[in-house]
Amino acid sequence: MKAARNLRGKATREAIVKAAETVFADVGFGDARLEDIAQIVGVRRPSMVYYFAGKQELYDAVEADIFNAMHEFSRERLETITGPLERLIALTDAWLDFMVARPTAARIIQRLIADVRPRGGNPIEFSFVALDDLEAIVNEGVASGSFRPVSPMFVLNGVAGGILFYVNNSNLIGDSRRYEPGDPDTLNEYRRLLRRLIRAAVLQGEP
Amino acid sequence: MKAARNLRGKATREAIVKAAETVFADVGFGDARLEDIAQIVGVRRPSMVYYFAGKQELYDAVEADIFNAMHEFSRERLETITGPLERLIALTDAWLDFMVARPTAARIIQRLIADVRPRGGNPIEFSFVALDDLEAIVNEGVASGSFRPVSPMFVLNGVAGGILFYVNNSNLIGDSRRYEPGDPDTLNEYRRLLRRLIRAAVLQGEP
Repeated sequence: MKAARNLRGKATREAIVKAAETVFADVGFGDARLEDIAQIVGVRRPSMVYYFAGKQELYDAVEADIFNAMHEFSRERLETITGPLERLIALTDAWLDFMVARPTAARIIQRLIADVRPRGGNPIEFSFVALDDLEAIVNEGVASGSFRPVSPMFVLNGVAGGILFYVNNSNLIGDSRRYEPGDPDTLNEYRRLLRRLIRAAVLQGEP
Repeated sequence: MKAARNLRGKATREAIVKAAETVFADVGFGDARLEDIAQIVGVRRPSMVYYFAGKQELYDAVEADIFNAMHEFSRERLETITGPLERLIALTDAWLDFMVARPTAARIIQRLIADVRPRGGNPIEFSFVALDDLEAIVNEGVASGSFRPVSPMFVLNGVAGGILFYVNNSNLIGDSRRYEPGDPDTLNEYRRLLRRLIRAAVLQGEP
């Protein structure tokens, strides 16, 4: 009995986090209403409070889930890959596929980069697992001499940042320029560009 | 007397738009309060309504001002520059300098790419002057054969998007990784990376 209740509780918690991700992505932290999230899940507001004390706690769970999932997804992809360039390409490829498959995550990260809140105190409380993945690979490449001396955070902003724009900006550039981020041909074309950019960012010599 | 009044009115309107840009950048459209903007300017709420009927009208004025200023700033820089690569580098250089000097603009654009609202109806109502600048140069380069066939919007998302991340992300990546976007050496280092990325995105051959 208790095990079944725990299982049901876990499923409800996961459903709340999933619904919250959509709402936070759509309207942002400030405009998100716990009532709307409860309604999507089909629970009452008091039941929500049983799982999450408030909006900030729920947002934190969403952000933690996004970055942990992103980290796990790329960790699996990189398991058998060696060499800093190959690993960096595999990592950014994984991030691209992750964001295309989960555009709500892309919108939430886009938002949190515009926001000072809600993570003013420790902005990398949840994102550090992903930042560390990229930083470790770039530092390894620089230390071994395969990469030119480049700041991992410039690779993050200048190259990986574009992944979020690719996913989030497709409907905001006008009818004649609209594209479908998940369309296989379009995605492959962007992946090829992303790889060119990665190589140009980290390899020695003039691009 | 009437001319003086007009002049004062123009100055008040500009002060309201300037204050609104800071508030919209800091808290986003949803959380922005006209009362707070009025207080910064030192006018009363009814005086605000004389200039802007509501929050949407004021937001529109801010967004229009940002993209027009960005367009004017880059137009001046490009006046004497010929050749698609040189013009594309001058344009993205100008965007970088514009955003570093006006980080509130960078935050507002970052936000509007995460938002479906408030520009759902015509998302490029204000940004088209900037999108057109980039699109024209990339299309010119592709047509003349200097550039490989590349989508202008992929250059926008994949390369120019990084400019916003460079400006907006500096305080959100943890104490040990923090940088100052306006520091001349740091800015030059990012500018060199940006130029490498531009060349890799548009030039023929393997980067």
